[in-house]
Amino acid sequence: MTTSDALAERLRAHAAQYHSAHPFHVRMNDGTLTPDQIRGWVANRFAYQEAIPVKDAAILSRCPDVAVRRRWIRRITDHDGTAEDGPDSGGIEAWLRLGEACGLTRGEITDHRHVQPGVRFAVDAYVTFARTKPWVEAVASSLTELFAPDLMAERLAAFEKYYTWIDPAGLQYFRNRLFQAPRDSEHALEVVLAHCRTPQEQDAAEAALSFKCDVLWAVMDAIDHAYA
Amino acid sequence: MTTSDALAERLRAHAAQYHSAHPFHVRMNDGTLTPDQIRGWVANRFAYQEAIPVKDAAILSRCPDVAVRRRWIRRITDHDGTAEDGPDSGGIEAWLRLGEACGLTRGEITDHRHVQPGVRFAVDAYVTFARTKPWVEAVASSLTELFAPDLMAERLAAFEKYYTWIDPAGLQYFRNRLFQAPRDSEHALEVVLAHCRTPQEQDAAEAALSFKCDVLWAVMDAIDHAYA
Repeated sequence: MTTSDALAERLRAHAAQYHSAHPFHVRMNDGTLTPDQIRGWVANRFAYQEAIPVKDAAILSRCPDVAVRRRWIRRITDHDGTAEDGPDSGGIEAWLRLGEACGLTRGEITDHRHVQPGVRFAVDAYVTFARTKPWVEAVASSLTELFAPDLMAERLAAFEKYYTWIDPAGLQYFRNRLFQAPRDSEHALEVVLAHCRTPQEQDAAEAALSFKCDVLWAVMDAIDHAYA
Repeated sequence: MTTSDALAERLRAHAAQYHSAHPFHVRMNDGTLTPDQIRGWVANRFAYQEAIPVKDAAILSRCPDVAVRRRWIRRITDHDGTAEDGPDSGGIEAWLRLGEACGLTRGEITDHRHVQPGVRFAVDAYVTFARTKPWVEAVASSLTELFAPDLMAERLAAFEKYYTWIDPAGLQYFRNRLFQAPRDSEHALEVVLAHCRTPQEQDAAEAALSFKCDVLWAVMDAIDHAYA
């Protein structure tokens, strides 16, 4: 096994640490969450959604490789939308429409009134990581996307089956991530495997991914406690 | 006169501080620079060109307004090119082709061997400004683009008239900036006028533009001294 293959295997093993195993997610996918719990999750998770392009721009601003930047920037337009596609484009807008489909108003999502301190702290920690750690570690921290498609597919099925009070048109964000996340994680893995050659670099990449799993888990903890 | 109009006028008055008046630029546009001086300028100025998308991504990562980000991101793709348009796209690549048209090799541009310390310090100061100052001030610092089209048109004419040893195909960067700079400065001015309402904010915007004029001037000073 090459050192690259071994690192890929070590990184993929963090699937076990992914927040899909969090009790709140398990209940969500089992269809047992109440409308208030779903709404609480959507409103809180918006703080994370909003931070994604900010985090990705921080990585862009610290990456010296034009070829990497040319591909990384797609993450930002995926979330922010583009001037060409108009104000309805992008993942942040899609998440707001999910919120509306769940019965939240746009205002109560964008003013963050529902956002729990634990969610805010975790999201801020993620942005600070991207702003301050070596850019390759910040890239490695995004690799939770390796595990996202399974959760996304399961979630989509659960929402369509159990949470029929939500207009299925509101689930477009999840549908988009089904193809965006694999494309993004493939690129991020390529960058990490190309740049992390020494044991120290490989340990740092793994620690970055573990840190990111902690961020996502802490978000779920805070939501679970607030809407128990 | 509204407070916005007054601010716009104060900002435009910094045209007098723009590096188009620098003796090195005056000689460039008079057609009296030697090939070595032109090459020195191109190789040094590359350090600035390379820093632009990094600086703009820093602004993007600190701007909380999705609508502003959707327009600002265009600056990054203008300089980096895009994955869709391929490795030959973007202003950094266009600048490298300018360098080749002047007789420099790609290698001696990208390894920064010609870059003067004063150029490096000025460019780093600009990136640090974008990373650390309030994002609206960083936007204001970009407003030297208000003055760029005149210099760019004059330079293009001078290169075509006096520096005929340079393949005119290499001048595409200047041609692109003729329409990019006005579009960019119009947006930046809109943002600054919308956000800078108090005297303190307006002073900070003006100071940011003055700082940026100093950056550009210091770059020219270092080049002028190195290739006198």
